Amino acid sequence: MRLVDDGDPSGLAAIEQLNPHTGRAYVLGVTGNPGSGKSTLVDGLIRQLRTRGESVGVVAIDPTSPFSGGAILGDRVRMADHALDEGVYIRSVATRGNLGGISRSTPAILHVLDAMGFDWLIVETVGVGQDEVDIAAFADTCVVVTVPGLGDEVQASKAGILEVADVFVVNKADRPGADRLVRELSQMLDLDDNHLRWRPPIVRTIATSNDGLGELLGEVERHRAEAGADLDARRHRRNRHLTRLLALGEAARRIDEYLAGDGWQALDDQIAAGTLSPFAAAFSVLGDIDFS
Amino acid sequence: MRLVDDGDPSGLAAIEQLNPHTGRAYVLGVTGNPGSGKSTLVDGLIRQLRTRGESVGVVAIDPTSPFSGGAILGDRVRMADHALDEGVYIRSVATRGNLGGISRSTPAILHVLDAMGFDWLIVETVGVGQDEVDIAAFADTCVVVTVPGLGDEVQASKAGILEVADVFVVNKADRPGADRLVRELSQMLDLDDNHLRWRPPIVRTIATSNDGLGELLGEVERHRAEAGADLDARRHRRNRHLTRLLALGEAARRIDEYLAGDGWQALDDQIAAGTLSPFAAAFSVLGDIDFS
Repeated sequence: MRLVDDGDPSGLAAIEQLNPHTGRAYVLGVTGNPGSGKSTLVDGLIRQLRTRGESVGVVAIDPTSPFSGGAILGDRVRMADHALDEGVYIRSVATRGNLGGISRSTPAILHVLDAMGFDWLIVETVGVGQDEVDIAAFADTCVVVTVPGLGDEVQASKAGILEVADVFVVNKADRPGADRLVRELSQMLDLDDNHLRWRPPIVRTIATSNDGLGELLGEVERHRAEAGADLDARRHRRNRHLTRLLALGEAARRIDEYLAGDGWQALDDQIAAGTLSPFAAAFSVLGDIDFS
Repeated sequence: MRLVDDGDPSGLAAIEQLNPHTGRAYVLGVTGNPGSGKSTLVDGLIRQLRTRGESVGVVAIDPTSPFSGGAILGDRVRMADHALDEGVYIRSVATRGNLGGISRSTPAILHVLDAMGFDWLIVETVGVGQDEVDIAAFADTCVVVTVPGLGDEVQASKAGILEVADVFVVNKADRPGADRLVRELSQMLDLDDNHLRWRPPIVRTIATSNDGLGELLGEVERHRAEAGADLDARRHRRNRHLTRLLALGEAARRIDEYLAGDGWQALDDQIAAGTLSPFAAAFSVLGDIDFS
């Protein structure tokens, strides 16, 4: 996987050899705002699936900013929980700020885990930034985790997340405002015409005490069964999405390479002198790079 | 501005003509999690600055997902508040999901507002996704708005935001947990060695009742005065950052154009047949596009 991250051609060749073994895993996206408790929820789902003897690979997209480069401690704790279980693999991926971080390593890890034969792949993301929505968008089933008591701005942004949601979770459902949130989501779904064939159910959970996780998994299974006819179209869409992200990631890598070199210095001087705008400089950079 | 959004060369030429008139406005970045009350805070700052007779342009990056395309209602309400004041311009920019949305129009709007002679430009962003941190990173002074009572995950991600913060705000400072949050931020700053010359102050505010806004503006002015020596280096960094974002945005536009055409169909078929991975397809796409 490291080879693919680094854009090494031999890594790419290795990835290509896995192609025939991929496409079997069922990809579950779990997305939600920070503080929605989605990590705890995913842990609960892992336990449920393990009880049924099914294996689970998890890629947790870590929204840590590029400036620190750190990882969220919680994920390391989670790793330790399942350290002795070969049927579980959890990996955190820091977004690191450039498109390359999220777009290259995450799909590569999923590709490898798929080929390794995991029954389920869970992609856990924060549902605020665009990158995270991107990843969630190509899951076979996408679970959107909401939580009572966040501000208006968050509520408004839920309208955007409506189209990626196959199943809604209202987590921390024992908190004040849970009924209201369920009602709001339900009203949003009433107004929505994107879900004529499948109306996303709203499941109440309290992940910390495992409440509702069985029901959640049941709804995921129901979506898997009923939306099976759409799966092919969905995977075509995913492949396109994925190719786009990967191409963008590689383009970003080459642009960064250019900006670290001498070519940039001349442009920088012109911008500082007021004879060139960053807009024109950007076109100049693209023209100078060999993308082939 | 629309011309620049669309990648029209005549729009680019117009932007270039503005170059000599830019670089005068002071750019204030205000970033914070959803629900931190930063819009209310920015409104308070606008009122303060207007009382002093200074003009303010605001670009509010709207984290609405690409799937809905909608804008947050609150911003339209804000526009109405200042509709008759020529010294205030507020514009919401939806991120729209592709890099092009945020990276092309936001800098272009700032460039134009700068040339128009606004004294202050405020860029208001959500501090979770990468794009938003990107924008905040090239402000002359960056204000990070925090709020008591969010989850652990949010606290952890603050480590990442430490390096972009010049001034911390603890908003909703009358809420339980405000003291603890101030203490945590202060401890983070104690451990941090990036701020040897300037230790970001922590200002308590209650934006809804204007409490602390005068102090906040005072700290911004103090940063402006004391960090003046760094301003040149900062603007060089910003120009590079901006050029990078713009180049990425343009690359994204061309990749999307390609993926909408016939070239993609052939690749899509091969991926579906298992003879090509999206990884190799991405390289093929980049090789086919003329970026010059």
